[in-house]
Amino acid sequence: MCTCITDFLTYETTKSVVVKSWTIGIINRVVQLLIITYFVGWVFLNEKAYQVRDTAIESSVMTKVKGFGIYNNRVMDVLLIYVVLVKIVHKLNNCPGWNLEFTCTQDSNCSKYVNKPGDYGILTGRCVSFNTTMKMCEIKGWCPAEIDTIKTTPMMEVENFTIFIKNSIRFPMFNYTKGNFLPTISSDYIKKCNFDMVNNTYCPIFKVGDVVRYAQQNFTKLADKGGIIGIKIGWLCDLDKSDDCNPSYSFTRLDAMSQKNAVSPGYNFRFAKYYKMENGTDYRTLVKAYAIRFDVLVNGNAGKFNMIPTLINMVAAFTSVGVGTVLCDIILLNFLKGAEQYKAKKFEEVKRTTFLLVLYNNTVYKMYIIYI
Amino acid sequence: MCTCITDFLTYETTKSVVVKSWTIGIINRVVQLLIITYFVGWVFLNEKAYQVRDTAIESSVMTKVKGFGIYNNRVMDVLLIYVVLVKIVHKLNNCPGWNLEFTCTQDSNCSKYVNKPGDYGILTGRCVSFNTTMKMCEIKGWCPAEIDTIKTTPMMEVENFTIFIKNSIRFPMFNYTKGNFLPTISSDYIKKCNFDMVNNTYCPIFKVGDVVRYAQQNFTKLADKGGIIGIKIGWLCDLDKSDDCNPSYSFTRLDAMSQKNAVSPGYNFRFAKYYKMENGTDYRTLVKAYAIRFDVLVNGNAGKFNMIPTLINMVAAFTSVGVGTVLCDIILLNFLKGAEQYKAKKFEEVKRTTFLLVLYNNTVYKMYIIYI
Amino acid sequence: MCTCITDFLTYETTKSVVVKSWTIGIINRVVQLLIITYFVGWVFLNEKAYQVRDTAIESSVMTKVKGFGIYNNRVMDVLLIYVVLVKIVHKLNNCPGWNLEFTCTQDSNCSKYVNKPGDYGILTGRCVSFNTTMKMCEIKGWCPAEIDTIKTTPMMEVENFTIFIKNSIRFPMFNYTKGNFLPTISSDYIKKCNFDMVNNTYCPIFKVGDVVRYAQQNFTKLADKGGIIGIKIGWLCDLDKSDDCNPSYSFTRLDAMSQKNAVSPGYNFRFAKYYKMENGTDYRTLVKAYAIRFDVLVNGNAGKFNMIPTLINMVAAFTSVGVGTVLCDIILLNFLKGAEQYKAKKFEEVKRTTFLLVLYNNTVYKMYIIYI
Repeated sequence: MCTCITDFLTYETTKSVVVKSWTIGIINRVVQLLIITYFVGWVFLNEKAYQVRDTAIESSVMTKVKGFGIYNNRVMDVLLIYVVLVKIVHKLNNCPGWNLEFTCTQDSNCSKYVNKPGDYGILTGRCVSFNTTMKMCEIKGWCPAEIDTIKTTPMMEVENFTIFIKNSIRFPMFNYTKGNFLPTISSDYIKKCNFDMVNNTYCPIFKVGDVVRYAQQNFTKLADKGGIIGIKIGWLCDLDKSDDCNPSYSFTRLDAMSQKNAVSPGYNFRFAKYYKMENGTDYRTLVKAYAIRFDVLVNGNAGKFNMIPTLINMVAAFTSVGVGTVLCDIILLNFLKGAEQYKAKKFEEVKRTTFLLVLYNNTVYKMYIIYI
Repeated sequence: MCTCITDFLTYETTKSVVVKSWTIGIINRVVQLLIITYFVGWVFLNEKAYQVRDTAIESSVMTKVKGFGIYNNRVMDVLLIYVVLVKIVHKLNNCPGWNLEFTCTQDSNCSKYVNKPGDYGILTGRCVSFNTTMKMCEIKGWCPAEIDTIKTTPMMEVENFTIFIKNSIRFPMFNYTKGNFLPTISSDYIKKCNFDMVNNTYCPIFKVGDVVRYAQQNFTKLADKGGIIGIKIGWLCDLDKSDDCNPSYSFTRLDAMSQKNAVSPGYNFRFAKYYKMENGTDYRTLVKAYAIRFDVLVNGNAGKFNMIPTLINMVAAFTSVGVGTVLCDIILLNFLKGAEQYKAKKFEEVKRTTFLLVLYNNTVYKMYIIYI
Repeated sequence: MCTCITDFLTYETTKSVVVKSWTIGIINRVVQLLIITYFVGWVFLNEKAYQVRDTAIESSVMTKVKGFGIYNNRVMDVLLIYVVLVKIVHKLNNCPGWNLEFTCTQDSNCSKYVNKPGDYGILTGRCVSFNTTMKMCEIKGWCPAEIDTIKTTPMMEVENFTIFIKNSIRFPMFNYTKGNFLPTISSDYIKKCNFDMVNNTYCPIFKVGDVVRYAQQNFTKLADKGGIIGIKIGWLCDLDKSDDCNPSYSFTRLDAMSQKNAVSPGYNFRFAKYYKMENGTDYRTLVKAYAIRFDVLVNGNAGKFNMIPTLINMVAAFTSVGVGTVLCDIILLNFLKGAEQYKAKKFEEVKRTTFLLVLYNNTVYKMYIIYI
């Protein structure tokens, strides 16, 4: 029993060979210093490994656009500023189709299309005159058909519109809340101020022209075909310092592929408003518009000192300091003066051994002898 | 002083026992080979540990739906294709309520509800005739009340509608942009092509019927009650290879629970349009519609070779190679032939020791003797 | 050749010094026990390191709001319940401007503003009478101009509105789907039940007043200026247990900064509906409304047993058990009784050595002697 406990309580420590050589000693200490510098400088100070980090940022964004000619001033994360390209009034009726694939000479050409959906209506199966020279299959739908080739009037005055962004964030791990403008600002300040990347990052009013410029886009080209601009609000907060939680804005064009291809060169859409007149006829106004769309994207994380990651990284640092011995051993056993002697000292071969029993002073001693 | 420096510059290396046994040697090298194979094969090649990875993908999505009968062709990330189930015209007026809990026989039954909101109006407190046999508490609201039991006409022609998806992504760490169709495609190609999972993944035009089929849904059942389909665009890019950044599409039904329960079996909603007639009366058209909603979800990451993760993982690999000695030591000291001898060689017990001083050739030598 | 193979197949194991001391033995085993307890208790049981984790949750949310006076019952992830603050009818016409910065005495004061956009129209350059005492620059736009100072009627009855949330989630790695209410619930139950944080978390019907109260907000104050409430649905699933995948709801006010500042104290927006009258004049109804907006935020992850993370963490555990020797060595070599002897045993200095060649029994033996 006692032997069991003694066996359980034995402690093994590795045997070491001590080398008193200035060369290898200096190399060893230099390598250890590099490792410690890496941990202190990079891991602890730069990567802030002594902090616990909250990446689950909660964010709410409220936006307003102000400027004359705003049609739909909705308050969502995605703003749409659009200009009407063409507005056409349609009447729900029977009329000749428009698509060149529906040309015909007589009703039998159209009968195969009966009740199949086309772009603007369901085909009736009859062939009717489109103009003096051409006949088309008749559709029951919104007449006349849409025409795509009216020149746009770019939305120049949009450049002076202003966007108000109110972003409120919270880090739930620390119950810390902040907003993108100071609670102390006054109504007058808000009415007059303008966001500036260099001088004034605390004003939440952005001029559309400025935002487009910060995203390195030419406003005229962007307004011509439309596009999507991203307003990124990044929050990198260090809660150990008293005032180190501020938003940093960056602006980028999100639909970069629009600039490279001719098929879908920008951002446009259609919508229709439907009316019923007194006599019961259905009308609709079809609007095709180009738009600049602004997506507000919020991300961020916050860190605060915590004992657990600090301890874990300190243990990792101390453990890593010993990694240098791999390099030092290679130098010691191969390149240093007296390497052979060190090698002999470090490595013991297991060979056949004998021992002599020697009687001395009435005690028996065991003397180990190594074969050559 | 000099002793201090010498002490600081000592170097300790562990003493090793060298075993020249083919058995344990082969086991050792096999274990090391397995560890190296794991690192090279899995960590470096499969997991691409030599690359730095950017997971903060920036994405913009623009969608269009084309097909006759599209009521609201909005251009958002979430498309709604709906079909009208029932359209009811209401007039703002006083009329009998509808909900069976508001049955009454006289005004006093209704007086407790006065000015409390019901489903379709505020109760006036009076009890009026609903039909020849029943009386209900009167509401001031939108009359007549909504009726829920009209059979739907499923939206069969929706199967042929087409969805155009333009997705532009950017990896900010590498300033790399790409889109889901090639910039060289022509207008004609776009007008005719159709997305196909096998043959044609570069066409951004998707037929609704195809999308529903790829999501393993039956179109008739889905159209009957509505549902939500997710179109997932995944970007896994390896920027070290010249053409390895392409979107991979997958389609799934997001509201799986709709299929399993009877209470809320799909996706439907109501909206109302409000009118004022010439005589000043308020009217509304209440529309209840079923819809198929398409959510476009974009995710992805990109990797590119970088020296720092490569070095860190190489150091981890080299350090891990030594882990095999744990297993080899167990075999060496317990199962190998001659295990006792190895054990004796490996472990030195600390026992009482004496030394003999021996005079030889005018120099004193210290000879250590170990007790049995 | 054979020597090469033999050299390649040598195995090195570190030499160890065995200390049979109860003190250091107990300290060693206690430290090892602490390390094992940390791994078993924290890493394996608490952090579930034996599981592979899927964080890419797919979620779809469908919401409905019910209650009298709902104007726009859209079915999106973001609900807007708003109350109309003021409704003004405008006519597109020429009229005096409203903004005090456009006061004037004669046309020349206004000529500098010609064709520049103001808040409600483009200035014509003429100076016209605003009232008996004041003249303003004329605008061509929506007249009369908006007035901001009408008292609101808070939306008290909104407190009893109900929100129905249907959330369906899927973990693609395990192809596991779940919803926030049981598929077995009946229509009657849904019509009557009400969500309760304590007693009834399986009813998907939420009273607006309850949600606001759970978010620790005062309904009257919130309704007065509007605000944004977050409904967070968290899914932490352990798929090794049979019924451990349930949603946990939390409610929070997302626009905390609204409460602290006077400039933008809540959540309000404007929209306009446009009409054309029979005589061709354009009219619009401008509505300014305060709203409570509800954002539904879904997140979560699921874990399931997997051999790979189990093995990796077991290897890490075993490797870490040896870290305790750093502390034990410090105690052994500095503080324990007999420390000097242990130090002498553990460290071997490399010094000049000589050996004696001894002839015994016709075999030559090498006897190493260490200098003092």
